[in-house]
Amino acid sequence: MHILVSNDDGYTAPGIEALVHALRDLAEISVVAPEVNHSGASNSLTLSRPLAVRKAPNGFTYVNGTPSDCVHVALTGLLDRRPDLIVSGINNGANMGDDTLYSGTVAAAAEGYLFGIPSIAFSLVSKAWSNLDAAAQYARSMVAHQLKNPIAGPVLLNVNIPDLPFGETKGVQATRLGKRHPSQPVIPTSTPSGETVYWIGPSGAANDDSEGTDFYALQRGYVSVTPLRLDLTQQAQVDQIGRWVNPL
Amino acid sequence: MHILVSNDDGYTAPGIEALVHALRDLAEISVVAPEVNHSGASNSLTLSRPLAVRKAPNGFTYVNGTPSDCVHVALTGLLDRRPDLIVSGINNGANMGDDTLYSGTVAAAAEGYLFGIPSIAFSLVSKAWSNLDAAAQYARSMVAHQLKNPIAGPVLLNVNIPDLPFGETKGVQATRLGKRHPSQPVIPTSTPSGETVYWIGPSGAANDDSEGTDFYALQRGYVSVTPLRLDLTQQAQVDQIGRWVNPL
Amino acid sequence: MHILVSNDDGYTAPGIEALVHALRDLAEISVVAPEVNHSGASNSLTLSRPLAVRKAPNGFTYVNGTPSDCVHVALTGLLDRRPDLIVSGINNGANMGDDTLYSGTVAAAAEGYLFGIPSIAFSLVSKAWSNLDAAAQYARSMVAHQLKNPIAGPVLLNVNIPDLPFGETKGVQATRLGKRHPSQPVIPTSTPSGETVYWIGPSGAANDDSEGTDFYALQRGYVSVTPLRLDLTQQAQVDQIGRWVNPL
Amino acid sequence: MHILVSNDDGYTAPGIEALVHALRDLAEISVVAPEVNHSGASNSLTLSRPLAVRKAPNGFTYVNGTPSDCVHVALTGLLDRRPDLIVSGINNGANMGDDTLYSGTVAAAAEGYLFGIPSIAFSLVSKAWSNLDAAAQYARSMVAHQLKNPIAGPVLLNVNIPDLPFGETKGVQATRLGKRHPSQPVIPTSTPSGETVYWIGPSGAANDDSEGTDFYALQRGYVSVTPLRLDLTQQAQVDQIGRWVNPL
Repeated sequence: MHILVSNDDGYTAPGIEALVHALRDLAEISVVAPEVNHSGASNSLTLSRPLAVRKAPNGFTYVNGTPSDCVHVALTGLLDRRPDLIVSGINNGANMGDDTLYSGTVAAAAEGYLFGIPSIAFSLVSKAWSNLDAAAQYARSMVAHQLKNPIAGPVLLNVNIPDLPFGETKGVQATRLGKRHPSQPVIPTSTPSGETVYWIGPSGAANDDSEGTDFYALQRGYVSVTPLRLDLTQQAQVDQIGRWVNPL
Repeated sequence: MHILVSNDDGYTAPGIEALVHALRDLAEISVVAPEVNHSGASNSLTLSRPLAVRKAPNGFTYVNGTPSDCVHVALTGLLDRRPDLIVSGINNGANMGDDTLYSGTVAAAAEGYLFGIPSIAFSLVSKAWSNLDAAAQYARSMVAHQLKNPIAGPVLLNVNIPDLPFGETKGVQATRLGKRHPSQPVIPTSTPSGETVYWIGPSGAANDDSEGTDFYALQRGYVSVTPLRLDLTQQAQVDQIGRWVNPL
Repeated sequence: MHILVSNDDGYTAPGIEALVHALRDLAEISVVAPEVNHSGASNSLTLSRPLAVRKAPNGFTYVNGTPSDCVHVALTGLLDRRPDLIVSGINNGANMGDDTLYSGTVAAAAEGYLFGIPSIAFSLVSKAWSNLDAAAQYARSMVAHQLKNPIAGPVLLNVNIPDLPFGETKGVQATRLGKRHPSQPVIPTSTPSGETVYWIGPSGAANDDSEGTDFYALQRGYVSVTPLRLDLTQQAQVDQIGRWVNPL
Repeated sequence: MHILVSNDDGYTAPGIEALVHALRDLAEISVVAPEVNHSGASNSLTLSRPLAVRKAPNGFTYVNGTPSDCVHVALTGLLDRRPDLIVSGINNGANMGDDTLYSGTVAAAAEGYLFGIPSIAFSLVSKAWSNLDAAAQYARSMVAHQLKNPIAGPVLLNVNIPDLPFGETKGVQATRLGKRHPSQPVIPTSTPSGETVYWIGPSGAANDDSEGTDFYALQRGYVSVTPLRLDLTQQAQVDQIGRWVNPL
């Protein structure tokens, strides 16, 4: 068995070290991860320059690009054999609801899925890396389960893990993505030379955190597992649009 | 009426100039676009630094960030009133099938949709800006149609326009996204100091270009209009995953 | 006659447009300038990626790199014949005293000088582009003078122009660089996610603005012209260091 | 005693680890170094965004900016007391002759010198990190010598160390900077989408490597020590320019 591990916090982040450590005896592990933090990178690919690929003393390979770059380059050139599974994370902070769209952690897994490889993104709902060991154990259980009992069909899972000690979570639930309110306003600040510049504001609070959502599960202490799709077609609207374009 | 225009090729690109020119008499136009080209940016947001917002001599506002940054900052701080429509493009090249996921042009429109505003992304299937005027006329017709006959419900449209003179297209079709084969291998090259570095390889050829897809429509000379959704949940798989996680 | 023009504020800056306009009838003008602002770039060269070179509608060539990159690439590949003079600017703000070391405007000229071509950097002591036309006229006079009466020997001139209407300056003085006090403290600010980050603080006030310095000249309404050298050897200290290293 | 250590290869480079290890028992060591490689950065300062300052597990502080940023931020905000010495390196490759102007290694030391602190830049004439331990021992000897027998007056030393085992160098020489021939031509390459882009070409060969230069010393197996100055005024030319500007 061969697992490719990536993330969006960069190859030196505690989350990827904990993940690799936890998976080490389940399979051969290859790590190809970004050189520096790329939170918010979404599925961005670097098309304007070639990517440098280097090896760290601990054996991790790092790329001066995005999470999607890392998995893309690994699958189209670096690895000598196709991985059986791609695992991304453990991310420093949640990736739930609409955030999923912006997440580099999810994007690294998505890139694998687009190449037809089962892929799982893990995020820990904590910015302080507290309970990282517990999160790594949950990740390990799920990966071991997938290796023994592979899910039928294409697989892209978005897993969020509560910030709780191992054994104190309530269990694991399959969920749908919730929704957030729109983001809060930009935060203006001033440069030393007097120009006003703007930070992107924080995410909005949960808008749809009803039963069945990832928000709902996490609020109650469950690990959430959301199966994702990447075909963005709004199938239910195609006929309506067909009628709408008719006069054009 | 108030339209916000953005793109991913940068505020100086011929595509956005042609688009603004074509829409000028339909509504008040605000332009907030990236300072430089961000093709492949996907929905990436810049979270690690504040964004500078400046005005070009032609009245366009430009931001040293991504397409998503531009629309986000416009909606959460720059504009004094909410736009009725967000239009992105006209992109230099197609955004069809899986490419949609990586497209900055689509991402700019997606950002508007997430704020509840009808949004349309326009792409021209040509890298040479040939037939740009024709594309701008198609964009104008569709925008005028939406302003007069607004589509019911949330709207995010991905429009691809063939590289043909005005009047020579076959019409407009509502489509679903096709699929591509995985990308081609990385392209290694050597730096002057002898390091091997890697370009991301070209997209794969169409894999699913069957009837009803955007590929199919464009190959036959139609403008394609694909309605998109951004909720990535694979709803059909939630129950299956629920059973799978049961032993965990 | 052939003049290469560059700057560090980017090819769309009013300063470079005014400069090119003022020089247009003195010689053939080639412009190769950065795509975006690179203030503070010093002599940095981009070695980690290849540079894109593109043409703007106004005929200017722009490069996605630093001021030094622009002149370097122009001289080692883009231009079909060697320029007789390299002119950089007009910069938005002074480049006096120690600032010269950090200036991208001066660096663009320095790059030309290193290739054995007479080079002049022009800076306007104003952040508001006020009196830019006057500055362009001074630049024009000096360039015309150099074309007719070329300075003997290698030439790298750092010219600072007061923020005054044409005819209201007191004249032109040859100067040495003054000195500044060390910079002011960093300015801490907070990101939306709560991390403290730091702006580089403003330059220090003039420390040596005694007679003969650029500071002194500008304070009195003169244009200052400082001849520069790029051999950083502290010749007067070589013997002292020779004795100091003796026991090693 | 308190030494600030920085470099331009990034805080994870073998050169800075070897340097810190070698100096550890001579003084208290603070490390503030760039997050990633910034070769060729010259004295560039980051003025367009605030800088993030983070701590690595090994105690090194890293900054998402240039070598000059690192030393600047350390001296104007991070360190609670002024260092007695600033040491930069050990660089991966020579910094001799005109290269000195582009070097980030030298720039880190230069920033300290501008704040009035004795500063030394160390470079190893090898790209393969061979004989790094020997280079670290030479650096240690020189730093120990400076701590015991401080050079009178302002100090900025540019030290280049041959790629030889310890004990096999011929000694240490005080030198002046040599000169290089202009760089070689740009190296064109093609992007996957067919655009021609350009690598900066390699440095030129030595042009002035006569006796007394750093080139001369290194070619003969000596460590070279060149005292530098940062006042770029070409004093010998001020009177000539005074006469030249007279008609203006």
